[in-house]
Amino acid sequence: MQTPVSIILDWGTSSLRAALVSRSGDTLDSRETQSGGIQFVKDGAFEAALMAAVGDWFSSHGPLSVFASGMITSRNGWVEVAYVDAPAGVAELAAGTRRMTLANGAPITFLPGMRDPAAKPFPDVMRGEEAQIIGCGVDTDRTLVLPGTHSKWARVEKGRISGFQTYATGEIFSLLTKHSFIAKAQDPEPGNGPLWEAFDRGAQFAASDNAAADAFFSAIFSARTGILAGELRPEDIMDYVSGLVIGSEFRQARAAGWLKSGDTVGIVGNNVLNSRYGRIAPLFGLEIEVSPADAAKRGVLMIASQATEI
Amino acid sequence: MQTPVSIILDWGTSSLRAALVSRSGDTLDSRETQSGGIQFVKDGAFEAALMAAVGDWFSSHGPLSVFASGMITSRNGWVEVAYVDAPAGVAELAAGTRRMTLANGAPITFLPGMRDPAAKPFPDVMRGEEAQIIGCGVDTDRTLVLPGTHSKWARVEKGRISGFQTYATGEIFSLLTKHSFIAKAQDPEPGNGPLWEAFDRGAQFAASDNAAADAFFSAIFSARTGILAGELRPEDIMDYVSGLVIGSEFRQARAAGWLKSGDTVGIVGNNVLNSRYGRIAPLFGLEIEVSPADAAKRGVLMIASQATEI
Repeated sequence: MQTPVSIILDWGTSSLRAALVSRSGDTLDSRETQSGGIQFVKDGAFEAALMAAVGDWFSSHGPLSVFASGMITSRNGWVEVAYVDAPAGVAELAAGTRRMTLANGAPITFLPGMRDPAAKPFPDVMRGEEAQIIGCGVDTDRTLVLPGTHSKWARVEKGRISGFQTYATGEIFSLLTKHSFIAKAQDPEPGNGPLWEAFDRGAQFAASDNAAADAFFSAIFSARTGILAGELRPEDIMDYVSGLVIGSEFRQARAAGWLKSGDTVGIVGNNVLNSRYGRIAPLFGLEIEVSPADAAKRGVLMIASQATEI
Repeated sequence: MQTPVSIILDWGTSSLRAALVSRSGDTLDSRETQSGGIQFVKDGAFEAALMAAVGDWFSSHGPLSVFASGMITSRNGWVEVAYVDAPAGVAELAAGTRRMTLANGAPITFLPGMRDPAAKPFPDVMRGEEAQIIGCGVDTDRTLVLPGTHSKWARVEKGRISGFQTYATGEIFSLLTKHSFIAKAQDPEPGNGPLWEAFDRGAQFAASDNAAADAFFSAIFSARTGILAGELRPEDIMDYVSGLVIGSEFRQARAAGWLKSGDTVGIVGNNVLNSRYGRIAPLFGLEIEVSPADAAKRGVLMIASQATEI
């Protein structure tokens, strides 16, 4: 068995995920706990929460180096780490880390998030996604998309992340299907998997030449008119809206200059949404590169290795 | 006092509004009841609900003619009236009415909604707005916007409504400010009226030359990044988002071909949103025409007068 040398924390608002990692970067053990999520930790007792989650790893293996990223480094977290401005690569992110020593003598390094001061109307921000991007490799200039509640479109140039933009796509999908007129119209069939035909129908309209597809506030009303017209069934709605919303993200990202037909785009992360994004990309003339599933861990280790040399 | 000759019903899902009207079209009395809303009426007891609301008007004035529009004419209402296809004017809408006689001998006429078979991706629909448009007068060719939960952009040509498109703007605003990341960020100050400076800031970005404004899913994230950047205060958020969302409706409607700089656009209805729409229109180079407050009643009477002649 390999020897553990570090603990990597993906520490967010709703959960704490921890990985016990070897020198070669292999994951030897991993845990996820809801109770460690920032919103559940009272009175700033983050160190106690960490020990409750992985104290036995320290007991067994000594004062391992800890590397933490995610909302734990935000204003509401343990240690606020200032955003590093784009353009930034491994060196700039490593220089932006903050280090402390735990009561048990283990060093803990908090990784910074990133800020794009050129984004409009206000500088954009991310915490955690920058490590995923770094972990995918930054040797080749390209555009990347990171699907999620708040998707990111990012550009890698000359070994650094040169800019990025947040799209609240996942949240808008959730709002529409949980709380809007659509919530009443739909009839999901859990467990049956995506109805790809319905998904494609929404996506194809979003990718079409029709100018009406530029009007998302209107296009989304098609979830009702499609039922009225007998073109959609209640069980189609969830996937139809998914295709329409994600397709609209691509359409908007194209309008904002993040993609054009013929580009190759990397899809980053192992989010369940990635297969949906991969299905839509060709409708916009894009070639897809799939990222390694452990991109986040790789990125943290790359940044961490430079940070600990400083 | 003038003699009442008819009762006009604006009968929707959540409320029943009734007006007692003279021959010259003046409103002599009016009432609104929540309990008469379609969703609260059990077992199809619509006639009983009508009598509970305005039975005394019949007792006092005899079997007055009743004209009903709104969701009461939909599949979930009292009498389903088929949509009349665009293009349609007073004559076509009058021909699409359905008439019944109440137990007390009063004739009740149900007005049809309208359908635009040319809308993409599916035919669009409305119930009630067509009467408002007719009531504004259809002598002049022009574009109209009807602000609301589901706003309509409509075109009047040659005395008829030639086409229209629904924008779920009000609903999207409500979802975002009630249920999204924005709900936590905002700090509304009820009773202080709109913070127009914040409203204008959102609207101006939506109307700007910046291509990022074409990406609504991204632009809306500025409600968070504006706070982080110290550019917006929590109390600004509600009106900032209002300006951004309504401004985005105009931007999308422009992309979809409903408006261009230099046009004159009518704002229809007496919705509280109208002042917000009127404030944004000049940012898109539009001249505004305000509609009469009683456009809906006028329209119903114009359609009704032809319907009862048939």
